[in-house]
Amino acid sequence: MKSPSEIVNIMINADSFSKWLGINVVKIDRGVCILNCEVKNEMLNGFHIAHGGITYSLADSCLAFASNSYGYQCVSIETSISHIKKVLEGEQLTATSREISRTRKTGIYEITIHNQNHELVANFKGTVFITENLW
Amino acid sequence: MKSPSEIVNIMINADSFSKWLGINVVKIDRGVCILNCEVKNEMLNGFHIAHGGITYSLADSCLAFASNSYGYQCVSIETSISHIKKVLEGEQLTATSREISRTRKTGIYEITIHNQNHELVANFKGTVFITENLW
Amino acid sequence: MKSPSEIVNIMINADSFSKWLGINVVKIDRGVCILNCEVKNEMLNGFHIAHGGITYSLADSCLAFASNSYGYQCVSIETSISHIKKVLEGEQLTATSREISRTRKTGIYEITIHNQNHELVANFKGTVFITENLW
Amino acid sequence: MKSPSEIVNIMINADSFSKWLGINVVKIDRGVCILNCEVKNEMLNGFHIAHGGITYSLADSCLAFASNSYGYQCVSIETSISHIKKVLEGEQLTATSREISRTRKTGIYEITIHNQNHELVANFKGTVFITENLW
Repeated sequence: MKSPSEIVNIMINADSFSKWLGINVVKIDRGVCILNCEVKNEMLNGFHIAHGGITYSLADSCLAFASNSYGYQCVSIETSISHIKKVLEGEQLTATSREISRTRKTGIYEITIHNQNHELVANFKGTVFITENLW
Repeated sequence: MKSPSEIVNIMINADSFSKWLGINVVKIDRGVCILNCEVKNEMLNGFHIAHGGITYSLADSCLAFASNSYGYQCVSIETSISHIKKVLEGEQLTATSREISRTRKTGIYEITIHNQNHELVANFKGTVFITENLW
Repeated sequence: MKSPSEIVNIMINADSFSKWLGINVVKIDRGVCILNCEVKNEMLNGFHIAHGGITYSLADSCLAFASNSYGYQCVSIETSISHIKKVLEGEQLTATSREISRTRKTGIYEITIHNQNHELVANFKGTVFITENLW
Repeated sequence: MKSPSEIVNIMINADSFSKWLGINVVKIDRGVCILNCEVKNEMLNGFHIAHGGITYSLADSCLAFASNSYGYQCVSIETSISHIKKVLEGEQLTATSREISRTRKTGIYEITIHNQNHELVANFKGTVFITENLW
Protein backbone atom coordinates (compact mmCIF):
# COMPACT_ATOMS: atom_id res chain seq x y z
CA MET A 1 0.00 0.00 0.00
CA LYS A 2 1.43 3.37 -1.02
CA SER A 3 1.94 6.08 1.60
CA PRO A 4 -0.22 9.25 1.65
CA SER A 5 2.72 11.30 0.31
CA GLU A 6 3.37 8.85 -2.53
CA ILE A 7 -0.29 8.88 -3.55
CA VAL A 8 -0.60 12.66 -3.47
CA ASN A 9 2.66 13.03 -5.41
CA ILE A 10 1.23 10.80 -8.15
CA MET A 11 -2.07 12.71 -8.10
CA ILE A 12 -0.66 16.22 -8.10
CA ASN A 13 2.07 15.53 -10.67
CA ALA A 14 -0.60 14.58 -13.19
CA ASP A 15 -3.02 17.31 -12.07
CA SER A 16 -2.69 20.15 -14.56
CA PHE A 17 -5.49 22.22 -13.10
CA SER A 18 -4.19 22.09 -9.52
CA LYS A 19 -0.86 23.24 -10.95
CA TRP A 20 -2.57 26.13 -12.76
CA LEU A 21 -4.15 27.07 -9.43
CA GLY A 22 -0.68 27.06 -7.86
CA ILE A 23 -1.70 24.62 -5.13
CA ASN A 24 0.93 23.64 -2.52
CA VAL A 25 0.59 20.62 -0.25
CA VAL A 26 1.24 21.84 3.30
CA LYS A 27 0.31 18.58 5.04
CA ILE A 28 -0.88 15.14 4.00
CA ASP A 29 -1.72 12.06 6.03
CA ARG A 30 -4.44 9.37 6.02
CA GLY A 31 -7.70 11.36 5.85
CA VAL A 32 -5.90 14.66 6.48
CA CYS A 33 -4.86 17.34 3.99
CA ILE A 34 -3.90 21.00 4.14
CA LEU A 35 -3.37 22.96 0.91
CA ASN A 36 -2.71 26.57 0.07
CA CYS A 37 -2.63 28.84 -2.98
CA GLU A 38 -2.56 32.52 -3.88
CA VAL A 39 -5.38 34.30 -5.73
CA LYS A 40 -4.16 35.66 -9.05
CA ASN A 41 -5.76 38.17 -11.40
CA GLU A 42 -6.97 35.56 -13.85
CA MET A 43 -8.96 33.87 -11.05
CA LEU A 44 -11.29 36.87 -10.59
CA ASN A 45 -14.90 37.16 -11.76
CA GLY A 46 -17.02 40.10 -12.92
CA PHE A 47 -17.32 41.44 -9.36
CA HIS A 48 -13.47 41.68 -9.18
CA ILE A 49 -13.38 38.98 -6.49
CA ALA A 50 -12.25 35.37 -6.76
CA HIS A 51 -14.67 33.33 -8.90
CA GLY A 52 -16.62 30.82 -6.77
CA GLY A 53 -14.95 28.11 -8.84
CA ILE A 54 -11.54 28.95 -7.37
CA THR A 55 -12.38 28.24 -3.74
CA TYR A 56 -14.46 25.24 -4.87
CA SER A 57 -11.51 23.84 -6.86
CA LEU A 58 -9.08 24.28 -3.98
CA ALA A 59 -11.54 22.52 -1.65
CA ASP A 60 -12.25 19.76 -4.18
CA SER A 61 -8.52 19.03 -4.55
CA CYS A 62 -8.22 18.94 -0.75
CA LEU A 63 -11.13 16.46 -0.64
CA ALA A 64 -9.51 14.30 -3.32
CA PHE A 65 -6.12 14.18 -1.58
CA ALA A 66 -7.57 13.57 1.91
CA SER A 67 -9.90 10.80 0.80
CA ASN A 68 -7.49 9.02 -1.57
CA SER A 69 -4.64 9.06 0.96
CA TYR A 70 -5.72 5.75 2.55
CA GLY A 71 -4.65 3.94 -0.60
CA TYR A 72 -7.98 3.24 -2.29
CA GLN A 73 -9.17 5.37 -5.17
CA CYS A 74 -12.17 7.52 -4.30
CA VAL A 75 -14.74 9.17 -6.54
CA SER A 76 -16.67 12.31 -5.58
CA ILE A 77 -20.43 11.74 -5.31
CA GLU A 78 -21.79 15.03 -4.02
CA THR A 79 -20.18 18.25 -2.87
CA SER A 80 -21.53 21.55 -1.59
CA ILE A 81 -19.93 24.88 -0.77
CA SER A 82 -21.01 28.05 1.00
CA HIS A 83 -19.20 31.21 -0.03
CA ILE A 84 -18.98 33.24 3.18
CA LYS A 85 -16.54 36.10 2.61
CA LYS A 86 -15.28 37.84 -0.52
CA VAL A 87 -11.79 36.83 -1.65
CA LEU A 88 -9.57 39.47 -3.26
CA GLU A 89 -6.59 39.30 -5.61
CA GLY A 90 -3.35 38.51 -3.80
CA GLU A 91 -5.00 36.76 -0.88
CA GLN A 92 -3.44 33.57 0.48
CA LEU A 93 -5.98 30.78 0.88
CA THR A 94 -5.55 27.70 3.07
CA ALA A 95 -7.83 24.66 2.77
CA THR A 96 -8.00 22.25 5.72
CA SER A 97 -9.81 18.91 5.71
CA ARG A 98 -11.75 17.32 8.57
CA GLU A 99 -12.96 13.74 8.23
CA ILE A 100 -16.58 13.68 9.40
CA SER A 101 -17.13 10.00 8.72
CA ARG A 102 -15.52 7.10 6.85
CA THR A 103 -17.22 3.75 6.40
CA ARG A 104 -16.30 0.90 4.03
CA LYS A 105 -18.08 2.48 1.05
CA THR A 106 -18.26 6.23 1.66
CA GLY A 107 -16.31 9.06 3.23
CA ILE A 108 -17.61 12.49 4.25
CA TYR A 109 -15.24 15.43 4.64
CA GLU A 110 -15.58 19.07 5.62
CA ILE A 111 -13.09 21.43 4.01
CA THR A 112 -12.73 24.91 5.46
CA ILE A 113 -10.99 27.68 3.57
CA HIS A 114 -9.42 30.59 5.43
CA ASN A 115 -7.59 33.67 4.16
CA GLN A 116 -4.24 34.98 5.41
CA ASN A 117 -6.05 36.76 8.29
CA HIS A 118 -7.50 33.44 9.49
CA GLU A 119 -11.00 34.49 8.39
CA LEU A 120 -13.30 31.76 7.11
CA VAL A 121 -14.07 32.48 3.44
CA ALA A 122 -15.76 29.21 2.40
CA ASN A 123 -17.14 26.03 3.94
CA PHE A 124 -17.26 22.88 1.79
CA LYS A 125 -18.68 19.41 2.41
CA GLY A 126 -17.96 16.45 0.16
CA THR A 127 -19.03 12.83 0.00
CA VAL A 128 -16.89 10.29 -1.84
CA PHE A 129 -17.47 6.70 -2.91
CA ILE A 130 -14.53 4.46 -1.93
CA THR A 131 -13.68 2.06 -4.76
CA GLU A 132 -11.72 -1.20 -4.37
CA ASN A 133 -8.95 0.04 -6.71
CA LEU A 134 -5.60 0.50 -5.03
CA TRP A 135 -3.30 3.38 -5.96
CA MET B 1 -33.00 48.83 -15.80
CA LYS B 2 -30.33 47.20 -17.98
CA SER B 3 -31.25 44.31 -20.26
CA PRO B 4 -30.04 40.74 -19.57
CA SER B 5 -27.53 41.01 -22.45
CA GLU B 6 -26.14 44.32 -21.20
CA ILE B 7 -25.69 42.92 -17.69
CA VAL B 8 -23.97 39.74 -18.84
CA ASN B 9 -21.71 41.73 -21.17
CA ILE B 10 -20.59 43.83 -18.21
CA MET B 11 -20.11 40.72 -16.06
CA ILE B 12 -18.26 38.59 -18.58
CA ASN B 13 -16.02 41.38 -19.86
CA ALA B 14 -14.61 41.78 -16.36
CA ASP B 15 -14.57 38.05 -15.64
CA SER B 16 -11.01 36.86 -16.16
CA PHE B 17 -11.65 33.33 -14.97
CA SER B 18 -14.67 32.73 -17.22
CA LYS B 19 -12.45 33.95 -20.08
CA TRP B 20 -9.73 31.48 -19.08
CA LEU B 21 -12.37 28.75 -19.14
CA GLY B 22 -13.31 29.85 -22.68
CA ILE B 23 -16.97 30.29 -21.77
CA ASN B 24 -19.37 31.37 -24.54
CA VAL B 25 -22.83 32.77 -23.87
CA VAL B 26 -25.27 30.80 -26.04
CA LYS B 27 -28.46 32.30 -24.59
CA ILE B 28 -29.34 34.88 -21.95
CA ASP B 29 -32.68 36.16 -20.75
CA ARG B 30 -34.29 37.01 -17.39
CA GLY B 31 -33.61 33.94 -15.22
CA VAL B 32 -32.34 31.93 -18.21
CA CYS B 33 -28.78 31.21 -19.29
CA ILE B 34 -27.04 28.70 -21.54
CA LEU B 35 -23.22 28.59 -21.66
CA ASN B 36 -20.68 26.33 -23.30
CA CYS B 37 -16.94 25.69 -23.23
CA GLU B 38 -14.38 23.11 -24.34
CA VAL B 39 -12.31 21.04 -21.95
CA LYS B 40 -8.60 21.76 -22.44
CA ASN B 41 -5.56 19.85 -21.19
CA GLU B 42 -4.82 22.28 -18.37
CA MET B 43 -8.31 21.63 -16.93
CA LEU B 44 -7.56 17.96 -16.16
CA ASN B 45 -6.86 16.42 -12.75
CA GLY B 46 -4.72 13.50 -11.61
CA PHE B 47 -7.21 10.98 -13.04
CA HIS B 48 -6.78 12.56 -16.52
CA ILE B 49 -10.38 13.76 -16.48
CA ALA B 50 -11.74 17.28 -16.02
CA HIS B 51 -11.15 18.52 -12.45
CA GLY B 52 -14.44 18.81 -10.55
CA GLY B 53 -13.72 22.54 -10.31
CA ILE B 54 -14.18 22.94 -14.06
CA THR B 55 -17.78 21.78 -14.26
CA TYR B 56 -18.47 23.59 -10.97
CA SER B 57 -17.05 26.84 -12.36
CA LEU B 58 -19.05 26.61 -15.58
CA ALA B 59 -22.22 25.97 -13.56
CA ASP B 60 -21.41 28.76 -11.11
CA SER B 61 -20.97 31.27 -13.96
CA CYS B 62 -24.29 30.08 -15.42
CA LEU B 63 -25.92 30.61 -12.01
CA ALA B 64 -24.43 34.10 -11.74
CA PHE B 65 -25.58 35.18 -15.21
CA ALA B 66 -29.09 33.67 -14.88
CA SER B 67 -29.73 35.18 -11.45
CA ASN B 68 -28.23 38.63 -12.13
CA SER B 69 -30.06 39.02 -15.44
CA TYR B 70 -33.16 40.56 -13.80
CA GLY B 71 -31.14 43.69 -13.04
CA TYR B 72 -30.42 43.28 -9.31
CA GLN B 73 -27.03 42.09 -8.12
CA CYS B 74 -27.15 38.60 -6.61
CA VAL B 75 -24.73 36.90 -4.24
CA SER B 76 -24.30 33.13 -4.04
CA ILE B 77 -25.28 31.68 -0.64
CA GLU B 78 -25.01 27.92 -1.09
CA THR B 79 -24.26 25.68 -4.05
CA SER B 80 -23.98 21.93 -4.53
CA ILE B 81 -22.90 19.75 -7.42
CA SER B 82 -23.06 16.04 -8.23
CA HIS B 83 -20.42 14.78 -10.65
CA ILE B 84 -22.22 12.08 -12.64
CA LYS B 85 -20.06 11.18 -15.64
CA LYS B 86 -16.35 11.57 -16.36
CA VAL B 87 -15.42 14.46 -18.64
CA LEU B 88 -12.49 14.01 -21.03
CA GLU B 89 -10.15 16.44 -22.78
CA GLY B 90 -11.69 17.94 -25.89
CA GLU B 91 -15.27 17.46 -24.77
CA GLN B 92 -17.78 20.25 -25.38
CA LEU B 93 -19.79 21.12 -22.27
CA THR B 94 -23.10 22.97 -22.22
CA ALA B 95 -24.58 24.41 -19.03
CA THR B 96 -28.31 25.15 -18.95
CA SER B 97 -30.12 26.96 -16.13
CA ARG B 98 -33.61 26.24 -14.78
CA GLU B 99 -35.18 28.64 -12.31
CA ILE B 100 -36.67 26.52 -9.53
CA SER B 101 -37.89 29.46 -7.48
CA ARG B 102 -37.45 33.21 -7.18
CA THR B 103 -38.88 35.25 -4.33
CA ARG B 104 -38.06 38.83 -3.29
CA LYS B 105 -34.93 37.83 -1.36
CA THR B 106 -33.70 34.52 -2.77
CA GLY B 107 -33.48 32.63 -6.04
CA ILE B 108 -32.89 28.90 -6.51
CA TYR B 109 -31.52 27.54 -9.77
CA GLU B 110 -30.70 24.09 -11.14
CA ILE B 111 -27.86 24.01 -13.67
CA THR B 112 -27.42 20.87 -15.73
CA ILE B 113 -24.22 20.21 -17.66
CA HIS B 114 -24.26 17.95 -20.70
CA ASN B 115 -21.45 16.82 -23.01
CA GLN B 116 -21.51 16.92 -26.83
CA ASN B 117 -23.41 13.58 -26.85
CA HIS B 118 -26.20 15.10 -24.74
CA GLU B 119 -25.18 12.98 -21.75
CA LEU B 120 -25.65 14.53 -18.31
CA VAL B 121 -22.21 14.96 -16.71
CA ALA B 122 -23.08 17.12 -13.70
CA ASN B 123 -26.10 18.43 -11.81
CA PHE B 124 -25.75 21.68 -9.84
CA LYS B 125 -28.12 23.54 -7.53
CA GLY B 126 -27.49 27.07 -6.34
CA THR B 127 -29.21 29.51 -4.01
CA VAL B 128 -28.55 33.25 -4.33
CA PHE B 129 -29.40 36.23 -2.16
CA ILE B 130 -30.96 39.05 -4.20
CA THR B 131 -29.55 42.42 -3.13
CA GLU B 132 -31.21 45.79 -3.76
CA ASN B 133 -28.24 47.00 -5.85
CA LEU B 134 -29.07 47.62 -9.49
CA TRP B 135 -26.61 46.77 -12.25
CA MET C 1 -38.09 -9.39 -9.45
CA LYS C 2 -40.95 -7.76 -7.56
CA SER C 3 -43.02 -5.03 -9.21
CA PRO C 4 -42.83 -1.37 -8.06
CA SER C 5 -46.28 -1.69 -6.44
CA GLU C 6 -45.33 -4.87 -4.58
CA ILE C 7 -42.13 -3.26 -3.26
CA VAL C 8 -43.83 -0.08 -2.11
CA ASN C 9 -46.62 -2.09 -0.47
CA ILE C 10 -43.99 -3.97 1.54
CA MET C 11 -42.19 -0.74 2.40
CA ILE C 12 -45.21 1.33 3.37
CA ASN C 13 -46.94 -1.44 5.33
CA ALA C 14 -43.94 -1.60 7.66
CA ASP C 15 -43.41 2.18 7.68
CA SER C 16 -44.95 3.49 10.90
CA PHE C 17 -43.78 7.05 10.41
CA SER C 18 -45.13 7.39 6.87
CA LYS C 19 -48.43 6.13 8.27
CA TRP C 20 -48.33 8.74 11.03
CA LEU C 21 -47.77 11.36 8.34
CA GLY C 22 -50.87 10.04 6.53
CA ILE C 23 -48.96 9.49 3.29
CA ASN C 24 -50.91 8.16 0.28
CA VAL C 25 -49.26 6.64 -2.79
CA VAL C 26 -50.75 8.39 -5.82
CA LYS C 27 -48.44 6.83 -8.40
CA ILE C 28 -45.55 4.38 -8.40
CA ASP C 29 -43.41 3.02 -11.20
CA ARG C 30 -39.71 2.30 -11.77
CA GLY C 31 -37.95 5.51 -10.71
CA VAL C 32 -41.24 7.39 -10.41
CA CYS C 33 -43.29 8.19 -7.33
CA ILE C 34 -46.03 10.65 -6.40
CA LEU C 35 -47.21 10.91 -2.79
CA ASN C 36 -49.57 13.19 -0.93
CA CYS C 37 -50.54 14.00 2.65
CA GLU C 38 -52.45 16.59 4.66
CA VAL C 39 -50.80 18.90 7.19
CA LYS C 40 -52.26 18.30 10.67
CA ASN C 41 -51.99 20.42 13.80
CA GLU C 42 -49.37 18.18 15.43
CA MET C 43 -47.06 18.75 12.42
CA LEU C 44 -46.68 22.48 13.16
CA ASN C 45 -43.65 24.23 14.67
CA GLY C 46 -43.27 27.30 16.88
CA PHE C 47 -44.03 29.64 13.95
CA HIS C 48 -47.46 27.90 13.50
CA ILE C 49 -46.38 26.54 10.12
CA ALA C 50 -45.42 23.00 9.14
CA HIS C 51 -42.10 21.96 10.74
CA GLY C 52 -39.34 21.63 8.12
CA GLY C 53 -39.16 17.97 9.09
CA ILE C 54 -42.63 17.33 7.65
CA THR C 55 -41.87 18.33 4.07
CA TYR C 56 -38.46 16.67 4.40
CA SER C 57 -40.05 13.41 5.57
CA LEU C 58 -42.60 13.39 2.76
CA ALA C 59 -39.81 14.01 0.23
CA ASP C 60 -37.55 11.39 1.83
CA SER C 61 -40.31 8.75 1.61
CA CYS C 62 -40.85 9.73 -2.03
CA LEU C 63 -37.09 9.30 -2.65
CA ALA C 64 -37.12 5.89 -0.94
CA PHE C 65 -40.09 4.58 -2.93
CA ALA C 66 -38.86 5.95 -6.30
CA SER C 67 -35.32 4.61 -5.89
CA ASN C 68 -36.25 1.20 -4.44
CA SER C 69 -38.92 0.55 -7.07
CA TYR C 70 -36.43 -1.03 -9.51
CA GLY C 71 -36.11 -4.03 -7.21
CA TYR C 72 -32.76 -3.37 -5.53
CA GLN C 73 -32.58 -1.97 -2.02
CA CYS C 74 -31.23 1.58 -1.90
CA VAL C 75 -29.71 3.52 0.97
CA SER C 76 -29.80 7.32 1.23
CA ILE C 77 -26.31 8.90 1.13
CA GLU C 78 -26.99 12.62 1.07
CA THR C 79 -30.13 14.73 0.85
CA SER C 80 -30.81 18.46 0.78
CA ILE C 81 -33.99 20.52 0.91
CA SER C 82 -34.87 24.16 0.33
CA HIS C 83 -37.95 25.39 2.13
CA ILE C 84 -39.49 27.91 -0.28
CA LYS C 85 -43.00 28.74 0.91
CA LYS C 86 -44.70 28.47 4.29
CA VAL C 87 -47.05 25.51 4.73
CA LEU C 88 -50.16 25.96 6.86
CA GLU C 89 -52.39 23.54 8.77
CA GLY C 90 -54.91 21.80 6.52
CA GLU C 91 -52.85 22.17 3.35
CA GLN C 92 -52.63 19.25 0.94
CA LEU C 93 -49.04 18.47 -0.08
CA THR C 94 -48.01 16.49 -3.15
CA ALA C 95 -44.46 15.17 -3.61
CA THR C 96 -43.34 14.27 -7.14
CA SER C 97 -40.07 12.55 -8.00
CA ARG C 98 -37.85 13.18 -11.01
CA GLU C 99 -34.93 10.87 -11.73
CA ILE C 100 -31.94 13.07 -12.51
CA SER C 101 -29.50 10.21 -12.97
CA ARG C 102 -29.20 6.49 -12.26
CA THR C 103 -25.97 4.56 -12.73
CA ARG C 104 -25.05 1.09 -11.47
CA LYS C 105 -24.08 2.34 -7.99
CA THR C 106 -25.93 5.59 -7.38
CA GLY C 107 -29.20 7.31 -8.15
CA ILE C 108 -29.98 11.03 -7.92
CA TYR C 109 -33.54 12.26 -7.58
CA GLU C 110 -35.23 15.65 -7.34
CA ILE C 111 -38.43 15.72 -5.32
CA THR C 112 -40.67 18.76 -5.63
CA ILE C 113 -43.44 19.45 -3.12
CA HIS C 114 -46.44 21.53 -4.11
CA ASN C 115 -49.47 22.64 -2.13
CA GLN C 116 -53.12 22.34 -3.22
CA ASN C 117 -52.77 25.59 -5.22
CA HIS C 118 -49.91 24.08 -7.25
CA GLU C 119 -47.39 26.40 -5.57
CA LEU C 120 -43.90 25.02 -4.99
CA VAL C 121 -43.28 24.82 -1.23
CA ALA C 122 -40.07 22.79 -1.13
CA ASN C 123 -37.37 21.46 -3.44
CA PHE C 124 -35.44 18.35 -2.39
CA LYS C 125 -32.50 16.51 -3.92
CA GLY C 126 -31.38 13.08 -2.80
CA THR C 127 -28.56 10.70 -3.69
CA VAL C 128 -28.90 6.99 -2.93
CA PHE C 129 -26.45 4.11 -2.99
CA ILE C 130 -27.85 1.11 -4.89
CA THR C 131 -27.07 -2.13 -3.04
CA GLU C 132 -27.09 -5.61 -4.62
CA ASN C 133 -29.86 -6.80 -2.26
CA LEU C 134 -33.12 -7.64 -4.01
CA TRP C 135 -36.46 -6.85 -2.43
CA MET D 1 -33.99 41.63 23.80
CA LYS D 2 -35.20 38.27 25.10
CA SER D 3 -32.72 35.71 26.45
CA PRO D 4 -31.96 32.46 24.56
CA SER D 5 -33.97 30.48 27.14
CA GLU D 6 -36.97 32.78 26.85
CA ILE D 7 -36.94 32.54 23.05
CA VAL D 8 -36.64 28.75 23.00
CA ASN D 9 -39.39 28.44 25.62
CA ILE D 10 -41.70 30.45 23.37
CA MET D 11 -40.67 28.41 20.33
CA ILE D 12 -40.92 24.96 21.89
CA ASN D 13 -44.15 25.62 23.76
CA ALA D 14 -45.88 26.31 20.44
CA ASP D 15 -44.03 23.54 18.58
CA SER D 16 -46.41 20.58 18.38
CA PHE D 17 -44.12 18.48 16.22
CA SER D 18 -41.05 18.87 18.44
CA LYS D 19 -43.32 17.79 21.32
CA TRP D 20 -44.45 14.73 19.35
CA LEU D 21 -40.77 13.91 18.79
CA GLY D 22 -40.22 14.17 22.56
CA ILE D 23 -37.42 16.71 22.18
CA ASN D 24 -35.68 17.95 25.34
CA VAL D 25 -33.54 21.07 25.48
CA VAL D 26 -30.24 20.07 27.13
CA LYS D 27 -28.45 23.38 26.53
CA ILE D 28 -29.27 26.71 24.92
CA ASP D 29 -27.21 29.84 24.47
CA ARG D 30 -26.57 32.40 21.71
CA GLY D 31 -25.76 30.29 18.65
CA VAL D 32 -25.53 27.10 20.73
CA CYS D 33 -28.09 24.35 21.19
CA ILE D 34 -28.06 20.73 22.37
CA LEU D 35 -31.23 18.64 22.12
CA ASN D 36 -32.06 15.00 22.73
CA CYS D 37 -34.92 12.59 22.09
CA GLU D 38 -35.66 8.85 22.15
CA VAL D 39 -36.58 6.88 19.02
CA LYS D 40 -40.06 5.38 19.37
CA ASN D 41 -41.75 2.66 17.33
CA GLU D 42 -43.90 5.11 15.35
CA MET D 43 -40.73 6.85 14.10
CA LEU D 44 -39.53 3.78 12.16
CA ASN D 45 -39.64 3.26 8.39
CA GLY D 46 -40.05 0.16 6.22
CA PHE D 47 -36.48 -0.97 6.99
CA HIS D 48 -37.36 -1.03 10.76
CA ILE D 49 -34.90 1.80 11.40
CA ALA D 50 -35.64 5.44 12.20
CA HIS D 51 -37.10 7.25 9.17
CA GLY D 52 -34.63 9.79 7.75
CA GLY D 53 -37.18 12.44 8.62
CA ILE D 54 -36.68 11.83 12.35
CA THR D 55 -32.98 12.71 12.50
CA TYR D 56 -33.63 15.55 10.01
CA SER D 57 -36.40 16.95 12.22
CA LEU D 58 -34.29 16.79 15.37
CA ALA D 59 -31.45 18.57 13.54
CA ASP D 60 -33.81 21.15 12.02
CA SER D 61 -35.22 22.02 15.46
CA CYS D 62 -31.65 22.33 16.77
CA LEU D 63 -30.84 24.68 13.87
CA ALA D 64 -33.94 26.74 14.58
CA PHE D 65 -33.22 27.12 18.29
CA ALA D 66 -29.48 27.85 17.83
CA SER D 67 -30.03 30.45 15.11
CA ASN D 68 -33.05 32.20 16.70
CA SER D 69 -31.40 32.43 20.12
CA TYR D 70 -29.72 35.77 19.33
CA GLY D 71 -33.12 37.46 19.42
CA TYR D 72 -33.84 37.92 15.70
CA GLN D 73 -36.20 35.59 13.88
CA CYS D 74 -34.44 33.35 11.36
CA VAL D 75 -35.83 31.48 8.38
CA SER D 76 -34.25 28.31 6.97
CA ILE D 77 -32.97 28.75 3.39
CA GLU D 78 -31.23 25.47 2.62
CA THR D 79 -30.44 22.39 4.65
CA SER D 80 -28.68 19.11 3.90
CA ILE D 81 -28.20 15.90 5.86
CA SER D 82 -26.06 12.78 5.48
CA HIS D 83 -27.43 9.66 7.12
CA ILE D 84 -24.31 7.82 8.33
CA LYS D 85 -25.43 5.04 10.68
CA LYS D 86 -28.71 3.20 11.14
CA VAL D 87 -30.80 4.30 14.12
CA LEU D 88 -32.85 1.67 15.97
CA GLU D 89 -35.92 1.83 18.18
CA GLY D 90 -35.12 2.85 21.74
CA GLU D 91 -31.92 4.69 20.85
CA GLN D 92 -31.18 8.01 22.53
CA LEU D 93 -30.21 10.72 20.04
CA THR D 94 -28.36 13.93 20.87
CA ALA D 95 -28.13 16.85 18.43
CA THR D 96 -25.36 19.39 18.94
CA SER D 97 -25.01 22.65 17.01
CA ARG D 98 -21.80 24.31 15.83
CA GLU D 99 -21.92 27.82 14.38
CA ILE D 100 -19.82 27.77 11.23
CA SER D 101 -20.48 31.39 10.32
CA ARG D 102 -22.84 34.23 11.19
CA THR D 103 -22.95 37.48 9.25
CA ARG D 104 -25.60 40.23 9.32
CA LYS D 105 -27.91 38.42 6.88
CA THR D 106 -27.12 34.70 7.08
CA GLY D 107 -26.01 32.06 9.53
CA ILE D 108 -24.54 28.64 8.78
CA TYR D 109 -24.70 25.82 11.31
CA GLU D 110 -23.49 22.23 11.45
CA ILE D 111 -25.63 19.91 13.54
CA THR D 112 -24.18 16.52 14.47
CA ILE D 113 -26.39 13.72 15.79
CA HIS D 114 -24.92 11.00 17.97
CA ASN D 115 -26.50 7.95 19.55
CA GLN D 116 -26.16 6.83 23.20
CA ASN D 117 -22.82 5.16 22.34
CA HIS D 118 -21.42 8.48 21.08
CA GLU D 119 -21.44 7.21 17.48
CA LEU D 120 -22.17 9.76 14.75
CA VAL D 121 -25.45 8.82 13.07
CA ALA D 122 -26.12 11.94 10.99
CA ASN D 123 -24.38 15.14 9.89
CA PHE D 124 -26.55 18.15 9.01
CA LYS D 125 -25.72 21.59 7.63
CA GLY D 126 -28.20 24.45 7.55
CA THR D 127 -28.21 28.01 6.26
CA VAL D 128 -30.67 30.53 7.68
CA PHE D 129 -31.69 34.03 6.63
CA ILE D 130 -31.65 36.44 9.59
CA THR D 131 -34.70 38.72 9.50
CA GLU D 132 -34.98 42.07 11.31
CA ASN D 133 -37.94 40.84 13.38
CA LEU D 134 -37.24 40.61 17.09
CA TRP D 135 -38.66 37.77 19.20
